Amino acid sequence: MVNQVQRGDGSWGSRSDSSAASNSGGDSSKESSRCSTPVLDADRTDRLRHKMRRRMESGDHWFSLEFFPPRTASGAVNLISRFDRMGSGGPLFIDITWHPSGDPGSDKETSSMMIASTAVNYCGLESVLHLTCCNQSKDNISRHLSKAKHLGLKNIMALRGDPVGSDWEEEEEGFNYAVDLVKHIRSEFDDYFDICVAGYPTGHPEAHSYKEDLKYLKEKVAAGADFVITQLFFRAETFLKFEEDCRAIGITCPILPGIFPIQGYQSLRQLVKLSKLEVPEEITRVIEPIKDNDAAIRNYGIHQALEMCRVLLDSGRVPGLHFYTLNREVATMEVLRQLGMWQEDPRRPLPWAVSAHPKRKVEDVRPIFWASRPKSYIYRTQDWDEFPNGRWGNSSSPAFGELNDYYLFYLKSKSSKDALLQMWGEELHNERSVFEVFTCYITAQPNRKGQQVMCLPWNDEPLAQETNLLKDELERVNTRGVLTINSQPNINGKPSTDPIVGWGPPGGYVFQKAYLEFFTSSENVSALLKVLKKYEPRVNYHIVNVHGRNLTNAPDMQPNAVTWGIFPGREIVQPTVVDPVSFMFWKDEAFALWIEQWAKLYEDESPSRMIIKYIHDNYFLVNLVDNDFPLDSCLWQVIEDMFELLQTGLDALGALDIGDALGALDTGDALGALDTGDALGALKTGYELGALDTGDSGASGGTLRTQDSVTDGPVSQ
Amino acid sequence: MVNQVQRGDGSWGSRSDSSAASNSGGDSSKESSRCSTPVLDADRTDRLRHKMRRRMESGDHWFSLEFFPPRTASGAVNLISRFDRMGSGGPLFIDITWHPSGDPGSDKETSSMMIASTAVNYCGLESVLHLTCCNQSKDNISRHLSKAKHLGLKNIMALRGDPVGSDWEEEEEGFNYAVDLVKHIRSEFDDYFDICVAGYPTGHPEAHSYKEDLKYLKEKVAAGADFVITQLFFRAETFLKFEEDCRAIGITCPILPGIFPIQGYQSLRQLVKLSKLEVPEEITRVIEPIKDNDAAIRNYGIHQALEMCRVLLDSGRVPGLHFYTLNREVATMEVLRQLGMWQEDPRRPLPWAVSAHPKRKVEDVRPIFWASRPKSYIYRTQDWDEFPNGRWGNSSSPAFGELNDYYLFYLKSKSSKDALLQMWGEELHNERSVFEVFTCYITAQPNRKGQQVMCLPWNDEPLAQETNLLKDELERVNTRGVLTINSQPNINGKPSTDPIVGWGPPGGYVFQKAYLEFFTSSENVSALLKVLKKYEPRVNYHIVNVHGRNLTNAPDMQPNAVTWGIFPGREIVQPTVVDPVSFMFWKDEAFALWIEQWAKLYEDESPSRMIIKYIHDNYFLVNLVDNDFPLDSCLWQVIEDMFELLQTGLDALGALDIGDALGALDTGDALGALDTGDALGALKTGYELGALDTGDSGASGGTLRTQDSVTDGPVSQ
Repeated sequence: MVNQVQRGDGSWGSRSDSSAASNSGGDSSKESSRCSTPVLDADRTDRLRHKMRRRMESGDHWFSLEFFPPRTASGAVNLISRFDRMGSGGPLFIDITWHPSGDPGSDKETSSMMIASTAVNYCGLESVLHLTCCNQSKDNISRHLSKAKHLGLKNIMALRGDPVGSDWEEEEEGFNYAVDLVKHIRSEFDDYFDICVAGYPTGHPEAHSYKEDLKYLKEKVAAGADFVITQLFFRAETFLKFEEDCRAIGITCPILPGIFPIQGYQSLRQLVKLSKLEVPEEITRVIEPIKDNDAAIRNYGIHQALEMCRVLLDSGRVPGLHFYTLNREVATMEVLRQLGMWQEDPRRPLPWAVSAHPKRKVEDVRPIFWASRPKSYIYRTQDWDEFPNGRWGNSSSPAFGELNDYYLFYLKSKSSKDALLQMWGEELHNERSVFEVFTCYITAQPNRKGQQVMCLPWNDEPLAQETNLLKDELERVNTRGVLTINSQPNINGKPSTDPIVGWGPPGGYVFQKAYLEFFTSSENVSALLKVLKKYEPRVNYHIVNVHGRNLTNAPDMQPNAVTWGIFPGREIVQPTVVDPVSFMFWKDEAFALWIEQWAKLYEDESPSRMIIKYIHDNYFLVNLVDNDFPLDSCLWQVIEDMFELLQTGLDALGALDIGDALGALDTGDALGALDTGDALGALKTGYELGALDTGDSGASGGTLRTQDSVTDGPVSQ
Repeated sequence: MVNQVQRGDGSWGSRSDSSAASNSGGDSSKESSRCSTPVLDADRTDRLRHKMRRRMESGDHWFSLEFFPPRTASGAVNLISRFDRMGSGGPLFIDITWHPSGDPGSDKETSSMMIASTAVNYCGLESVLHLTCCNQSKDNISRHLSKAKHLGLKNIMALRGDPVGSDWEEEEEGFNYAVDLVKHIRSEFDDYFDICVAGYPTGHPEAHSYKEDLKYLKEKVAAGADFVITQLFFRAETFLKFEEDCRAIGITCPILPGIFPIQGYQSLRQLVKLSKLEVPEEITRVIEPIKDNDAAIRNYGIHQALEMCRVLLDSGRVPGLHFYTLNREVATMEVLRQLGMWQEDPRRPLPWAVSAHPKRKVEDVRPIFWASRPKSYIYRTQDWDEFPNGRWGNSSSPAFGELNDYYLFYLKSKSSKDALLQMWGEELHNERSVFEVFTCYITAQPNRKGQQVMCLPWNDEPLAQETNLLKDELERVNTRGVLTINSQPNINGKPSTDPIVGWGPPGGYVFQKAYLEFFTSSENVSALLKVLKKYEPRVNYHIVNVHGRNLTNAPDMQPNAVTWGIFPGREIVQPTVVDPVSFMFWKDEAFALWIEQWAKLYEDESPSRMIIKYIHDNYFLVNLVDNDFPLDSCLWQVIEDMFELLQTGLDALGALDIGDALGALDTGDALGALDTGDALGALKTGYELGALDTGDSGASGGTLRTQDSVTDGPVSQ
């Protein structure tokens, strides 16, 4: 691209190339001297209609996916996981239907409004919220639209909706047709929303004629709709004729065919009944004989949809395909895969999941701590007015929202209590039982009960690909009570297109400093603090317990960039930092997860619960950064040195407590401020807790036996 | 260092370690969510008294240098060069004396005020401005102090000064003694200034007694002085006794001995007369016999000062040494070198010369264009309220100040008109004559007249060390009319302590993208634009002529970071960018230098002047960035390809003009906006100018013979 800049009367005008201007990320109007986040992905900030235009200009077909809101909260949790999985295939947008009878605009976790909001904010998906206007007051509609805007929704599918009851009549001044809703949106919200309307390839069932229905569609577009999605149909020529007829009467906006892969006999019958469509004979002829064979019907559905999509795409008149998923994954994904439209390796714009809320479009840095809990981070920062773009600093972090309710539905574990107990142990015997859970998670080996540990309170997903690179080292330290919850390898300039660690536009280079975050006992921390003196200033550390004592060698409490990228023609991007201030907010969450997600699985006062509670009360949360990213990470050696010091100092270990370790650091003022008494108190509690040990053939003594694990070697499975 | 952070009632307090707080760079109080520049060098932002305290705590001796204002403007230019040279040795501060008879507070380039301001703002030196109060009105003194504050001066040496005439009497309410001035500063300016006062190891000549004089000193310190510098003395024991006596009466602030290396017989006699001191016999005995041998006296002076300094430092009672330089370099530098206190390899806090103005303490990014003209950049941005910390962007550059007067004394060439003519040619014959000047500058070879070309209008210093790395390539392209004015090699992670390319604190890694900036003819640019298509998106370019046409492939006009550093425990620092917006301001300056510094050396209408004017009117200024910093720079290959295209396209070259070249780019809108007519007009002017060719045996035809140089090979010297 060649840009042309011309100087006006002493001041600099905007670019004369107006089409390029729309690609600029929308920041060109900002006047601040220090704004201008280097937006790496123009798509991130554009509105849907612009994304469509750009894709059409480049001849790049897209797809979109329709979902309906679930009935139950656990259905919602599942649907959100589905959003994450199907979002990774690269839909241009998804849309969420509106069910007037289901309180669709409420704050319930199953409402259309909240599901769409979750898709935008937590899953980073461009989303279209359906809205029906039939039998609704203007106030009510405006309230829904205002709420949608406030939640970060930017697109509305404007529908009439089915009248409630059969005695529906047009109201004067009311919303009688979708066109009234389109006009209302444009008059009340100006150009804020992108608007989609429905097209009926065989005419709306209630329309007097196909031709009259086309006229209505033209009115809807003229009133301000940006694009059209059609009702489902069964023959490609049905759509192609419709599209031709639309163009003939002057409808110029994108018209997207609605594709319905037949997924079962019953669902087909139901849909056809609702939409008053006729299934062509060539289809009924095939499926009637196999109507009890779900797999066969689904295979046929995939085949039929695929053939139809190919004809549509080949016609050159279809910029994108819209799928009625019925909240299922397999058929749609399979059609898209076979069409080559499913992104097998979607490029990440940033190393973390980007939210699609317009307010967050300048967000370009996050603390690493929430790497496995991005939804929690978004939730806790949702009230921020701006995001610290590239600059975290002393007292510069806005307040994090409290995590009062750990059972907020989108932070909930995807697994049931029973499943969690099977993975994490129905009965814990001592700290070692906990070490084993961590080790099984890391190694993907089944636990003693033969169950795979698929998640931990801090990690609701299986290990990330890049974490797999560290698997052996992680296993070794977890068996010995270094309970890792977050880590990344060092990366010294891999291409930005690297399938495992790459992110951002092509042609760049990405870098990382090695990072390791874990819980470990106070004895281990005592030894670790001594060991870390050898690694100054190469290794930065933050060590904190549940009471908020924070030991660190971070200079001036400044953030440490641990992920950054260098791209052609851009400023440096540093999307992930270890920020000392936000670490203290993360610490609250990280410690609370022990209790909220794990301890509470067990009965009050039960030994299992007391063991988790003991860890919560006495362990430290540690993070380590190896600043020397071009060299092999030294963090594993740091841990080895810690174990070695514990082992060689075994005799003296009785005398070694956290106070001594700190004394050895010769920290002057810092030491004075540290109430070592409390820490020692906590150790005592530990020994008392030893009485709770319920006995385990593999272990002896009190619960504080991290030392044992040093000499015992890895836990046997 | 171990920091301790404790959580208050929901909000984060400041660090409990108050001594660490003073090292924090002063940003901890900022409430903005996006401020907090990662200040790499705490020294940069601290006040002088804190720097002293830190140096004393770490037992790190410092030195400081005293200068007096010069009499003439050219003396000022020389003194400023001296500041740069002596500043590189690492003085903790310099001080500038105040001469009441010389209009010291005026805006004259030779005034004490302006010299001190230049030292702070343009040379980045912590500076102390002397101020005398005798016979001055309060208003006058306050005006001087306000002006000093406004100019960025932060330290005052408060002196009484010598009364004018012999009939001086104490005034009621007036400034009779230095202590009155100290009180006035503290009452009018609170704690803003750090204040120094003078101590007299043998008592002030006008004091009634040594003891009474000590009492006056104690009063000055009690009134608010932060440290003491003593009058010169000739024996270490004189100072040590004085220091002991000061401590005995309760003076606790730093007391710095004033060291005067004897540099000549006359200057010694004069100083002794003015200060009413007696030269000890052991000294006069040595120097009287050699009083006509300047070298011998200076050698003795160095020896004598060195011995005295050693005794002082060994006493353990002297934190730093203050040198009365008499505006000379050699003796002071030699003493400091032999003491091991002269920094041979001063660490650069950033890749460019940091200004010491308090307003600029957050400055951490600059456009690369002013790399060789840092004083010009500081001058043109002196009115900025804030500096774009790490984020330049579209329309985010504050307005650059106009460079109306190219003869502002600190932007003036250090060389005289005659010297410049000798270097750049008393008579130019054609463009080739200009190529030769550039080539001689790059190679450090003498020109045809046997003169070394020590500077160019865009480079007032010999080549930077890192540029030397590119010498061969630069020579090759300059001989062929690619007239380079700025360049840097690519660097892929060298240690921050690297003597040539390193900067910032130790333990870090620095990176650069290869950069090349040059003037070249429109024919060359036509070919270059074709060649650059092959190098997309690896190479970013900006190409502009004097009329402001800017051809670029920079995405969204965003800045491109070309120097960055990764440091332990820090955010990424990106101190140098190629910023498309500021490039257009630089372009004005870069083109103007052809006329102001070069063409104007020649008579109006003279062929030499017309040749420079032709280049000014018709050449393009080009900058190229190779984004692929881990690979060998491709920029030299780009230039080679350009020459090759010019050569192979020799037959078609008649038809090749800038319009065609742009047409070949198929740039659509960008092309439409480009008025190719003008560019062609400029070419025509060129051919007309051919008539001015004054004939040179080595060249034939019109002045537009860049092609010739392609076939002729390098210019012979």
